[in-house]
Amino acid sequence: MFTFVILEFSSKIIEQAVDAFAQLPGVGKKTALRFVLHVIKQDKIQSENLSRLVMQLKTDLRFCERCHNISEQTICEICSNPSRDESLVCVVQDYRDVMAIENTGLYKGHYHVLGGLISPLEGITPSNLNIDGLVNKLQSNRVNEIILALNATMEGETTSFYIFRKIAPYNIKLSAIARGIAVGDELEYADEITLGRSITNRVPFDSQIKK
Amino acid sequence: MFTFVILEFSSKIIEQAVDAFAQLPGVGKKTALRFVLHVIKQDKIQSENLSRLVMQLKTDLRFCERCHNISEQTICEICSNPSRDESLVCVVQDYRDVMAIENTGLYKGHYHVLGGLISPLEGITPSNLNIDGLVNKLQSNRVNEIILALNATMEGETTSFYIFRKIAPYNIKLSAIARGIAVGDELEYADEITLGRSITNRVPFDSQIKK
Repeated sequence: MFTFVILEFSSKIIEQAVDAFAQLPGVGKKTALRFVLHVIKQDKIQSENLSRLVMQLKTDLRFCERCHNISEQTICEICSNPSRDESLVCVVQDYRDVMAIENTGLYKGHYHVLGGLISPLEGITPSNLNIDGLVNKLQSNRVNEIILALNATMEGETTSFYIFRKIAPYNIKLSAIARGIAVGDELEYADEITLGRSITNRVPFDSQIKK
Repeated sequence: MFTFVILEFSSKIIEQAVDAFAQLPGVGKKTALRFVLHVIKQDKIQSENLSRLVMQLKTDLRFCERCHNISEQTICEICSNPSRDESLVCVVQDYRDVMAIENTGLYKGHYHVLGGLISPLEGITPSNLNIDGLVNKLQSNRVNEIILALNATMEGETTSFYIFRKIAPYNIKLSAIARGIAVGDELEYADEITLGRSITNRVPFDSQIKK
């Protein structure tokens, strides 16, 4: 049976707060109401804290002018760090991927954050992404290699291919992160495309053991 | 494989905001980070709105002194409405249940909001709930009937039984909402306890059709 839920609130403030929370990604009206009831119940200090931080996220943070990463400065810590290799640029979807790669501790180059992936279904075209900024970066002649580190999804592959076409005239080395069997995974549960790719793109054994 | 995720943030504000969002019910650090990134991306007006409403939930709302429902006044709209029957009190778990029953449009009595259910596992004892307020209400001699409208779970049944014992000395009519097959449901998928109860507590057919 299909149930259509209409929520009627006794208070305008609750109604508006539910609408505001329901704009967060993946949050519907019912979940938003749970959040609202939690805020009403919790200590005043915690609510003040949440309220203040929501404002600070808008006022104190900006996008780095060079790589579009989120930063407290105009130029982010990574771009302004002289010990990092600016000739190497890793292209990622958003801030979370920068975090994930930083956490590996194995990458010492710069980043370029696209702010999304090409997705005609969601109405995201190349003009909505920071792809022009990447092309501009190449014109400075300081970049030797671009690493594409995008999701292994239809949108990620489309975006990778679009960037490949865009930067082809610049004759710059273009690589992509390896697709293969995740460390700890069992072969028999891997899908055939991943397994196929991991065989095609096999690497010398000694390069794997030295990590 | 068990993966342990440590999130390291480049910005203190992001870290604090993630911690603040992660206190909402059912929100982990990864979801909190999605919320934070959304707030950073959305229009400033929307963030200001969310920030202001979070504060207003604490400053402008309170619990009704009579029924513990959430209200903008000291006494809520339902308790202060003279056309509602104060001799009938419906005991519910929280504000959402008041909303759900109000939406049926079939109840014209008062409410009493417990603020939770007895749950030793979660450390919620009768003293954490507004049960004493219910007993005090009975001493006014204005209440004729109490309707228990609590969840059909272990916690709900325990709380119902506790209230039954508490108000037994007052010799007041005590009823509980009907348990049975939901409208639109098929018998063959109903569990045997529900089906059994719906047979034991069968009602005259003409009382069902007049709704």
